[in-house]
Amino acid sequence: MDKEEPMQPQADVEHLQKIARMMRYHILAATTHAGSGHPTSSLSATELMAGLFFGGFFRYDPDNPDHPNNDRLIFSKGHAAPLFYALWVAAGALDGERYDNNYRKMGSPLEGHPTVAYKYVEAATGSLGQGLSIGVGEALNAKYLDKLPYVTYILLGDSEMAEGSQWEAMEIAAHYKLDNLIGVLDVNRLGQRGETMYGWNLEVYEKRIRAFGWETILVDGHSFPEVLEAYKKAGRVADKPTMIIAKTIKGKGVSKVENKNGWHGKALKQDDFEAAVKELGDIDMSVRGQIAPPQDLRPERPQPGPVDEPHYPADKPVPTRNAYGNALKRLYPKFPAIVSLDGEVSNSTRAEYFKEAYPQRFFEMYIAEQNMVGAALGLAQRGQIPFVSTFAAFLTRAFDQIRMSRYSDPNIKFVGSHAGVSIGQDGPSQMGLEDLAMMRTVLDSVVLYPCDAYSGERLVEEAAQHQGIVYIRTTRAGTPILYGPEEAFPIGGCKVLRQSDQDVATVVTAGITVFEALKACDELKENGVNIRVIDLYSVKPVDEATLKDAARETKAIITVEDHYAEGGLGEAVKSALAATPTPVYSLAVRKKPQSGKPQELLDYEDISQRAIVARVKDLG
Amino acid sequence: MDKEEPMQPQADVEHLQKIARMMRYHILAATTHAGSGHPTSSLSATELMAGLFFGGFFRYDPDNPDHPNNDRLIFSKGHAAPLFYALWVAAGALDGERYDNNYRKMGSPLEGHPTVAYKYVEAATGSLGQGLSIGVGEALNAKYLDKLPYVTYILLGDSEMAEGSQWEAMEIAAHYKLDNLIGVLDVNRLGQRGETMYGWNLEVYEKRIRAFGWETILVDGHSFPEVLEAYKKAGRVADKPTMIIAKTIKGKGVSKVENKNGWHGKALKQDDFEAAVKELGDIDMSVRGQIAPPQDLRPERPQPGPVDEPHYPADKPVPTRNAYGNALKRLYPKFPAIVSLDGEVSNSTRAEYFKEAYPQRFFEMYIAEQNMVGAALGLAQRGQIPFVSTFAAFLTRAFDQIRMSRYSDPNIKFVGSHAGVSIGQDGPSQMGLEDLAMMRTVLDSVVLYPCDAYSGERLVEEAAQHQGIVYIRTTRAGTPILYGPEEAFPIGGCKVLRQSDQDVATVVTAGITVFEALKACDELKENGVNIRVIDLYSVKPVDEATLKDAARETKAIITVEDHYAEGGLGEAVKSALAATPTPVYSLAVRKKPQSGKPQELLDYEDISQRAIVARVKDLG
Repeated sequence: MDKEEPMQPQADVEHLQKIARMMRYHILAATTHAGSGHPTSSLSATELMAGLFFGGFFRYDPDNPDHPNNDRLIFSKGHAAPLFYALWVAAGALDGERYDNNYRKMGSPLEGHPTVAYKYVEAATGSLGQGLSIGVGEALNAKYLDKLPYVTYILLGDSEMAEGSQWEAMEIAAHYKLDNLIGVLDVNRLGQRGETMYGWNLEVYEKRIRAFGWETILVDGHSFPEVLEAYKKAGRVADKPTMIIAKTIKGKGVSKVENKNGWHGKALKQDDFEAAVKELGDIDMSVRGQIAPPQDLRPERPQPGPVDEPHYPADKPVPTRNAYGNALKRLYPKFPAIVSLDGEVSNSTRAEYFKEAYPQRFFEMYIAEQNMVGAALGLAQRGQIPFVSTFAAFLTRAFDQIRMSRYSDPNIKFVGSHAGVSIGQDGPSQMGLEDLAMMRTVLDSVVLYPCDAYSGERLVEEAAQHQGIVYIRTTRAGTPILYGPEEAFPIGGCKVLRQSDQDVATVVTAGITVFEALKACDELKENGVNIRVIDLYSVKPVDEATLKDAARETKAIITVEDHYAEGGLGEAVKSALAATPTPVYSLAVRKKPQSGKPQELLDYEDISQRAIVARVKDLG
Repeated sequence: MDKEEPMQPQADVEHLQKIARMMRYHILAATTHAGSGHPTSSLSATELMAGLFFGGFFRYDPDNPDHPNNDRLIFSKGHAAPLFYALWVAAGALDGERYDNNYRKMGSPLEGHPTVAYKYVEAATGSLGQGLSIGVGEALNAKYLDKLPYVTYILLGDSEMAEGSQWEAMEIAAHYKLDNLIGVLDVNRLGQRGETMYGWNLEVYEKRIRAFGWETILVDGHSFPEVLEAYKKAGRVADKPTMIIAKTIKGKGVSKVENKNGWHGKALKQDDFEAAVKELGDIDMSVRGQIAPPQDLRPERPQPGPVDEPHYPADKPVPTRNAYGNALKRLYPKFPAIVSLDGEVSNSTRAEYFKEAYPQRFFEMYIAEQNMVGAALGLAQRGQIPFVSTFAAFLTRAFDQIRMSRYSDPNIKFVGSHAGVSIGQDGPSQMGLEDLAMMRTVLDSVVLYPCDAYSGERLVEEAAQHQGIVYIRTTRAGTPILYGPEEAFPIGGCKVLRQSDQDVATVVTAGITVFEALKACDELKENGVNIRVIDLYSVKPVDEATLKDAARETKAIITVEDHYAEGGLGEAVKSALAATPTPVYSLAVRKKPQSGKPQELLDYEDISQRAIVARVKDLG
């Protein structure tokens, strides 16, 4: 089971202890100077991290943080940021005084919890229970995509082991035999408001983690010899990930706070700080450690190539989810960084079309959406373009991970299928009715909602091309082919589908209800009433100019969406038109949905042809 | 370790087999008639559930589903709804033909996944990995609050064991020694799109579940003698929950689909159905089983009593989170159904004020928000009023549970502290900036956002009084006392804080930015410009009448919120005023937040006094 591993250099324990003392100084100095922060949570893991960095294990080029073969270190317990920064001081890559004086300061990259504002942060953390999933993505990339020998290390807190996402990451890491993933569990016994469920009962953690298929190594987290030995052993484990489970003391080294409750997230006052520094003993402020360099290996990545054009027979309805699957598969040669992750529903989201064509670029992430999103972030940070798919409803499971991912400036695409009541008989649990609100509220996100196969194909391409967070909402049912293959769908655009000089109102909609609007338009026209119809396929950003034209040229705007009334397309339009006098009326899902036939439900919720016609007639 | 348990009646295996055949008939008939549904996932658990119901274990009065001592059964694998309904046919509580003809029909309570439209459904399911958490709430209620001997049973699928929420529920159930909670894990090997991670390797499940502190019992899920024996054993386990882990066959009894991939969520066609019925053999459509009645025990619940009035010195700032803690403690005698759940941050959310006063009504749910919300739903369904608190940012972790809870019509209160960039140095990971969007988009939810201690106190009382889902957003920093103790804050209201005949604009805001608006108002007034200021403490529903008055009487509306621009207060106001011509301008968080001092961040995001003054001046 052992991997072949070059002998590690013999680390000098005394030197490491000197480094740790200096790091402790900076952890205390920076937090006391800032007047806030988490010194005690940093002190418990100081030896664990100093041993990793300066014991010859961690391989990283500080002059080239983007080196594809750098080992990766993620602080899942992001509140231990003071320790993270102290490591880089010790590595000679961050000026100690600069750290002491700028931690948590406005404009400084040394934020209260790590964000990518600081160049050595691989991904932002601070919402607990997310780092291991990010690490799964990094390790999947190393083992299966880039095929590089870098190792991903995750510092974990014991409190955060209560998060279910940890066990999702654990099971998937074992499933994919990620022997390049090493967790370091800092069991300091104390959470924010008191003791954790298991205190220093390391065996509970060991039993669970082993049951989830990991190797485990128990250590005294303050003993450098034990810590170094643990990393040595962990590096030799083959075919499975390893967790180093360390018994540690929160606040270690400062008797006033050591192992005491009530000291989470609190900085020492100046006089306590001075006493603590005395207690640390002789501190050599100039001591530095050496980080081993990475092997200079680069991944072999294919060059972008040409792709076919999409083609759909004009007379056959196609679900936009099919267009998604087709597009992903079709576009891969042009975007060879695409990787597809799906939450055990690839036959429904149609990610399986891609999977069948490019099995090596597809990861089955099972029904564990939180870890799926975290892993996607890890892949994105290594230069891949992850497309993450599940039912739109189930993406809500990972809202915290989606929200947090934003602070890593990632290039991730989310795809939610089975949007709206139009899914029909399966009922409300399976209906995505909050997804537009969720994805719109993410800063700078792009939200796309195609209504036919061609727009679906083009919007997948737009998503792949766009650097950032993009959400694509797809529909279960087949919808008619509305556009031709030549049509372009730029982000921020829309399509005016019906227009005349006599339009009394403009219906703005997207997705399946576009066809309800068109039917309503035809019905009204037969009665001599003209309306404008806009396909707002780009829900964020919206095409303000076209909407404002419509607001100027027609008496009223009517928005229609298969989504709850708040936060979706209707409010996007209202926001765009908030400074114009034209009234905006919104048709949206406002009654508790239920099982029924798609058309029955569209009618029931007053978002179908009938409701649109009635609303236009009501304008008088 | 064994509990004393009366001997179970000797069940007649042949009779049970007759019942199971009849149930299989209805599972197939109803799904074939509907043309959709999940027969195969129902057939695998037929013996497991028939044995529970009619083997003398499950105690329930079908004439009185609300009996507080009924045992509870939750289908965490909600897609097995056809089996659930078939159970009630077999119990004589649902007409078989009515079931066959109405399953999944518009208007029928027999929905595609269980919802509380059907009287025997305790809580809606269908998003996987949620039932066990709901069961934790039911079992906490029985053991610690109502002190009743009812038992909660949860039917679980093997696929859904990949969800982290399961392990959250598992750890908390063991922590609280819930020996009144029995899980039934239906290991049918096949998920939606193929085999699960572990197939029929029951030992993997056993090892993990035991490591999480549960008793386990392995059975052949199609053998009635084994199933009955398992329930008997499970009923005797003391001090910990039990999981019955059953090896089963998906599609059991229908050779065309038995143990075959590709048959998830698919109904048989008519001819396959007819062949399947033949294969089932002699079916006695009139066979019925007997459910044992519950002991007629009722909980002793205290009567509501009088409470003190809140009091705060007028000159001392108080964080609204403190007001929350104070109010919950103060109001308990008036609302003795209040129960507080907190995600290991009670010292920050101030739930600890309540905990210290009423420790028996407080549950520490550790850092496991998904399970916390699920458990709260279970408690709500048993008549408690759960107040669920954590940082607003971390409530996003449970969005799927919050979304799903809506379909159970529950009486739950969510409380999110540390809202907005105004939390300061801790940085974006800890800032609730999407919570208003998330909670507004929940159908019929109430969203409240107090700005001072008195409004905080009153809004907690409004929340307790209101039947339904309420969200209260609280602030970390102390804010001045703005209101008096006599002021009322009805849901759907607002407070006009500044008003004159010469108001050029109305600033609509809530929470911490109310004070920025007041400062801006004062500054402008010194320059001879009057503005109106509205505290929109009820973000949903909003006070449309007052907003429309302001829109009529002033030239412009300016919304200000410490939240992202989409889905929050600004869009709530825009929605209310979408049909009025007055322009609405929105100040909201639009730049990536960072660590900094609260005031620096309010300034940086242009949601402070300075930005408000500038915006008003820009109106010209």
